[in-house]
Amino acid sequence: MIDLYTWKTPNGRKPVIALEELHLDYVVHPVDIGRDEQFLPGFVAVSPNSKIPAMVDREAAVTLFESGAILQYLAETTGKLLPASGKTRYSTLQWLNWQVGGVGPMFGQLGFFANRAKEKLPLAIDRYLIESNRLLDVLEHRLAQSAYVGNDDYSIADIAIYPWVVAVITANPTLLGDARERRPSMDRWMATLAERPAVIKGMAVLQDV
Amino acid sequence: MIDLYTWKTPNGRKPVIALEELHLDYVVHPVDIGRDEQFLPGFVAVSPNSKIPAMVDREAAVTLFESGAILQYLAETTGKLLPASGKTRYSTLQWLNWQVGGVGPMFGQLGFFANRAKEKLPLAIDRYLIESNRLLDVLEHRLAQSAYVGNDDYSIADIAIYPWVVAVITANPTLLGDARERRPSMDRWMATLAERPAVIKGMAVLQDV
Repeated sequence: MIDLYTWKTPNGRKPVIALEELHLDYVVHPVDIGRDEQFLPGFVAVSPNSKIPAMVDREAAVTLFESGAILQYLAETTGKLLPASGKTRYSTLQWLNWQVGGVGPMFGQLGFFANRAKEKLPLAIDRYLIESNRLLDVLEHRLAQSAYVGNDDYSIADIAIYPWVVAVITANPTLLGDARERRPSMDRWMATLAERPAVIKGMAVLQDV
Repeated sequence: MIDLYTWKTPNGRKPVIALEELHLDYVVHPVDIGRDEQFLPGFVAVSPNSKIPAMVDREAAVTLFESGAILQYLAETTGKLLPASGKTRYSTLQWLNWQVGGVGPMFGQLGFFANRAKEKLPLAIDRYLIESNRLLDVLEHRLAQSAYVGNDDYSIADIAIYPWVVAVITANPTLLGDARERRPSMDRWMATLAERPAVIKGMAVLQDV
């Protein structure tokens, strides 16, 4: 049994999709970051960086934060969604890291400056809009060559990237409303993932809370 | 033989430290990002995200970008600097991801808005200064409990984090000049790493170019 501490954000949805794909038993514990619950001592004991998601694997007595590390843990302990060795393993980890270090932080900064900041700062909005479009172009280029992002098979790289691409397009209809139409390979990949039952469940986690 | 495409930046120094620690043969190919060389076709063929570092392992015919993935590749192919299984493996990957997704992007944004941006925007500078100090506090808290960041032994998590901590303090003497004095466990860890010959070599890569 896995205790998953999460919220209805792109990073929070990633482990839910993976747990569903892997048919693992888990319990969702909501951490409402809109109410600053990530700073409560009970949660900080599990996630000292005060970010969701975090997880506890009760049987293995493993406590883990950072969504990229959680995805790799779930994949390696089940032997699925990440090749155990060889070129495809590292291309998958490469694109997983691309999400963790680029897509997530940069799409996140665009969301802040374009939508949540009290002042509208053109220098900051332009910086993150240009970088977000560049990252989406890199994804389009990759998906014109490969059925999935990490390798020819569906993997934790797809699980990591998909919720962020959905979020950045949804949250920025004026700036990025035509992002899918302009990127046919990415559009094809998004349509394929959107039909997976595990993706549907993961994207809907805590939606009624 | 490994071809390493890199530059004298925190991310660019990480694989050099690892290659030195592991006593692997490598050749450094400078990619001067001050001259936009990361956008040249020859480099984009290796690194389609147009970021350094990237590497080619000639014998294995593996091409890889993203510094976190490169560190993991070097560790797993040599069986060093990352435990092969168990709790210590995932705590190491957790802190590696913490650097890739948090420390790197946030310290990087502070560097842009505090030092390189044409306008001084207090909202942006404050945002990234507060987050950088918070991340340094998380590191201090971790190092008060553990000799190294990822586990009790030196690992790729330390190699990933150290160049960024040095860079953020060095680049922001007014904002973060007392960062080490205020964090004694982090200070002890930095002093320990600074004495390692591989760290000295990695931090000095391309310094005379």
